[in-house]
Amino acid sequence: MGLLEFIKDYFLGFWDYETPKVMVVKNQKLGVIYRGVQFLVITYFIWYVFISQKAYQDSETRPESSVYTKMKGTALQGDHILDMVEYVRPSEGGDVISTILRREVTHNQRQGTCAEHFTVPRANCSKDADCISGEVNFDGNGQRTGRCVPYYNQTFKTCEIQTWCPIEDYAAIWEPALAEAINFTVYIKNAIHFPKFKVLRGNIKPNKRNGQKYLNKCHYNEKKHPYCPIFRLGYIAEQAREKFSELCRTGGVIGVFINWKCDLDLDPSECTPTYSFRRLDLRKNLPSSGYNFRFAKYYSKDGEEFRTLIKAFGIRLDVIVHGHAGRFSIIPTIINTVTAMTSVGICSIICDWIMLTFIDKNDIYSDRKFDDDSKVPSPSQLLTVPTEFTISYGSNHSDLSEGVAL
Amino acid sequence: MGLLEFIKDYFLGFWDYETPKVMVVKNQKLGVIYRGVQFLVITYFIWYVFISQKAYQDSETRPESSVYTKMKGTALQGDHILDMVEYVRPSEGGDVISTILRREVTHNQRQGTCAEHFTVPRANCSKDADCISGEVNFDGNGQRTGRCVPYYNQTFKTCEIQTWCPIEDYAAIWEPALAEAINFTVYIKNAIHFPKFKVLRGNIKPNKRNGQKYLNKCHYNEKKHPYCPIFRLGYIAEQAREKFSELCRTGGVIGVFINWKCDLDLDPSECTPTYSFRRLDLRKNLPSSGYNFRFAKYYSKDGEEFRTLIKAFGIRLDVIVHGHAGRFSIIPTIINTVTAMTSVGICSIICDWIMLTFIDKNDIYSDRKFDDDSKVPSPSQLLTVPTEFTISYGSNHSDLSEGVAL
Amino acid sequence: MGLLEFIKDYFLGFWDYETPKVMVVKNQKLGVIYRGVQFLVITYFIWYVFISQKAYQDSETRPESSVYTKMKGTALQGDHILDMVEYVRPSEGGDVISTILRREVTHNQRQGTCAEHFTVPRANCSKDADCISGEVNFDGNGQRTGRCVPYYNQTFKTCEIQTWCPIEDYAAIWEPALAEAINFTVYIKNAIHFPKFKVLRGNIKPNKRNGQKYLNKCHYNEKKHPYCPIFRLGYIAEQAREKFSELCRTGGVIGVFINWKCDLDLDPSECTPTYSFRRLDLRKNLPSSGYNFRFAKYYSKDGEEFRTLIKAFGIRLDVIVHGHAGRFSIIPTIINTVTAMTSVGICSIICDWIMLTFIDKNDIYSDRKFDDDSKVPSPSQLLTVPTEFTISYGSNHSDLSEGVAL
Repeated sequence: MGLLEFIKDYFLGFWDYETPKVMVVKNQKLGVIYRGVQFLVITYFIWYVFISQKAYQDSETRPESSVYTKMKGTALQGDHILDMVEYVRPSEGGDVISTILRREVTHNQRQGTCAEHFTVPRANCSKDADCISGEVNFDGNGQRTGRCVPYYNQTFKTCEIQTWCPIEDYAAIWEPALAEAINFTVYIKNAIHFPKFKVLRGNIKPNKRNGQKYLNKCHYNEKKHPYCPIFRLGYIAEQAREKFSELCRTGGVIGVFINWKCDLDLDPSECTPTYSFRRLDLRKNLPSSGYNFRFAKYYSKDGEEFRTLIKAFGIRLDVIVHGHAGRFSIIPTIINTVTAMTSVGICSIICDWIMLTFIDKNDIYSDRKFDDDSKVPSPSQLLTVPTEFTISYGSNHSDLSEGVAL
Repeated sequence: MGLLEFIKDYFLGFWDYETPKVMVVKNQKLGVIYRGVQFLVITYFIWYVFISQKAYQDSETRPESSVYTKMKGTALQGDHILDMVEYVRPSEGGDVISTILRREVTHNQRQGTCAEHFTVPRANCSKDADCISGEVNFDGNGQRTGRCVPYYNQTFKTCEIQTWCPIEDYAAIWEPALAEAINFTVYIKNAIHFPKFKVLRGNIKPNKRNGQKYLNKCHYNEKKHPYCPIFRLGYIAEQAREKFSELCRTGGVIGVFINWKCDLDLDPSECTPTYSFRRLDLRKNLPSSGYNFRFAKYYSKDGEEFRTLIKAFGIRLDVIVHGHAGRFSIIPTIINTVTAMTSVGICSIICDWIMLTFIDKNDIYSDRKFDDDSKVPSPSQLLTVPTEFTISYGSNHSDLSEGVAL
Repeated sequence: MGLLEFIKDYFLGFWDYETPKVMVVKNQKLGVIYRGVQFLVITYFIWYVFISQKAYQDSETRPESSVYTKMKGTALQGDHILDMVEYVRPSEGGDVISTILRREVTHNQRQGTCAEHFTVPRANCSKDADCISGEVNFDGNGQRTGRCVPYYNQTFKTCEIQTWCPIEDYAAIWEPALAEAINFTVYIKNAIHFPKFKVLRGNIKPNKRNGQKYLNKCHYNEKKHPYCPIFRLGYIAEQAREKFSELCRTGGVIGVFINWKCDLDLDPSECTPTYSFRRLDLRKNLPSSGYNFRFAKYYSKDGEEFRTLIKAFGIRLDVIVHGHAGRFSIIPTIINTVTAMTSVGICSIICDWIMLTFIDKNDIYSDRKFDDDSKVPSPSQLLTVPTEFTISYGSNHSDLSEGVAL
């Protein structure tokens, strides 16, 4: 045939609609199995994927978060008043803030020479020869001068070392814990931004009538004050299931988790955080547990520098923000719907297998399902033509085809 | 038949190719709908999934990032020169750096006793009996001694407290803001590493001819100097749409976002960051907004410690790095292509439904589509009856069917 | 027919099982291609998706991590002993810790007036007129007074400035690097929590017999001590392929990566971290490389404040924790199995295309595959038997089949 005809045919063929031929099997057993599997698949998609997993939403799980923390409270240490400037480090108020609960203070350390602590390996000596000059013992506090000196006001002797004197192990004063600290409060301001949805939220209610007053009074409480971002250290410890006295003794790291779970299809005011608290550092059965750190205040007198060394035990609060926001979006909806529909197809595979393996007696179904060219044709196939023919005019000639069908 | 034959048949059967039978419907309406849906699906995949979403790429969204910040500039505060050592905290130059813009300084605080501030609840008194000794008011500055003393050089009296004296509320000196700070610069060095692709990039052009000179002079500007990692505070504030004078007054937290979007299929030099700036802390209508923190410098004189307390208002810069890299990979390409192809299948489901519901006159199509064994046989089918017929009872009558089959 | 019947029919129809009709083609070539493609697809799913990618597991990639770091070691700087209180900043021991390796110290800086450094642009002068009073040069150290003064003990003159005197550039004392620092150790305690699986793990072996002793002695070594969380700075530098002496000179930022890869289907004790080290800041060919920062110690004498300015070069350790945990879950397993099964369907699409394009001689297959209503039945179809029959030998006998077709 000519090129034109070919093109014409092709063009017409392009508008044909092709749909797979289907064999209907009137078999209760199969039907039940088939519908059963279908039911499971559809249930899974509707209940789990769409309702539980909200697959119809576009979601954002890594928001931009900003945390600002500030502690408040004063405590009396002997006749010395401690305010937050002294017990909070660092002072900048970021997402990691540590508060001192107990201190071991070594006053007036100066660079010089003094006796090494007696627990340090090979520190005990009777004569200078026992101490190698210039040796720096890793577990020790400084470099040995090679002299053997009396251990402070004791009778026995240890090697002399060059270091900050007196050494902490000997001179540190153990202060009692700050019991009042249980009432210290930490104010946690958290703002969160979901770039994909351009949604900005904070953990403080804006426009609150005389909000400042409220923030001065309130303490967070899951039931009573869910919108008050001020937390008592005692409350935090309790929520983390830690004894406060224990924390004072060893110190510890506690995570303050701010969880934002926002369904932006609802009213934005629904998008509020929940707080949870958990001790982050492992402690049980650990050789070294707890949280402590050392720092010093440096002074100078007559050009000579001296320092107060402080070993601080305390609570470190790590504010960790989790955010998840979802909003209806057409594309994931379509995708998941398509997936659901195609997944239903899987049922056939299973049922076909069942049918052909268990139910199909003497290949009756398979004969019909599989148009196998190697089979010797049954007479019925010879006469298939007429029927086919009549239908051949398609629905637009259906009157005629019926005419013929008579 | 013998086992051998069976195996032979099975082996041959293994190499058969099975393909679904398809019914072609010459129906313009359907054809148009069918092709239309197909077109939509294919367009979606080609345009959105492949071109826009780059589904042919393997991607990495959580790179390892390292940020190093350093501020520069000097400002005159009265006759006191402030350099970055004084106004930048912390000094280590991590990804969070805060610069002081305004200070409220309380000089020469000493541990001792002095009058509580008159705004503190129940601080005003006329006689000692009004002050409970040992009481620590949470909003107050210290522990009450039980005495009622004149409020500094005033006529009225307040309860005496033990604390750092004089108290900040009374003695703090408000310094003017550092207007020059608008010209301070922050140098942000950012290196980023995509482990999956082993790609390492920095925000500074390496090998730059006399780069050091360039870095001494340049200031970042999206248009003119996109590769200069030095930012004027004024520029940052402006980009974040904040009035600098306002920031000086209340302080604030500003996010510096470094966005890496790298298509590693292109030349690596294409992989450069863009910068954006946004205020992170919510301020509008908030009871307590802005950013400030307190710290102290400790001194000692004749063994007595005293301090200078500084309440600092300033800008905290949080450098937040977002990274996304993609590179062609065969597996996601195949997967998404397959998904695309299978998704086209969905068209049939839709069109079948349309066909059988709206277009199909007197079941002509469905007769052809569905090879239903229960239909009253058409003449052509007469010869197939025996087999077909028996089947219609389902396999539970298969014995009978076999009987007939004889 | 009546409504009742309709409903009855519909209800019965509901339990029908529909399965696509399939055409079997006995064609070796096709069969091989078909099975080949199938094999590839199945292999991909079994080997890559399930075995390599563990698609049968539910996974969690963003664990909650807590890091606590502590440095140890003492070094002799001249006749001055440095302990970790002096060379570690910040002292709180978070996940970013920097240790000082070399210092440039400027002692006894006081607020006052002194000569600007001669390298500063337009600082050199011969008479007061050369210096504009009140000018603040951005690269300079302070505000100019307008006087032209001798440069310290030199013969030439520079503009006088108001600043901390003497200026660092002139007065800084370069201390030698802390060579001993190569033996300093950093103790890194890391606890990790996978919320989804409620699994909590630490990088220290609990219940270790005399663990404290062990932790005092051991140094991490991939081979010998994989469970010792104490790292020598020298070891870290070496692992990061950096020369320690070089680090002492310029400083640098090194990432300590703790990688948790936990297959929770195995015994939890299998879930242990691996450590890797990499230099984070780019250095090669960069104008400004390395890591340094400035800080000061403030003193007071007779009410006058003075400071010691320290420019510190050192190593900043950024502890970065990566975590991935997976545990068998039924839903991802099903989903991926279904995907696998449906993906096999893609084979037909490919093979159909091959069949109809390359193999199908004179449309025999397509005639059978496509039940096309528009075709006027060709005689061949009336006698479909012979042709079909011949085809059964596969296309290699097509000549014969054609012969018969005549």
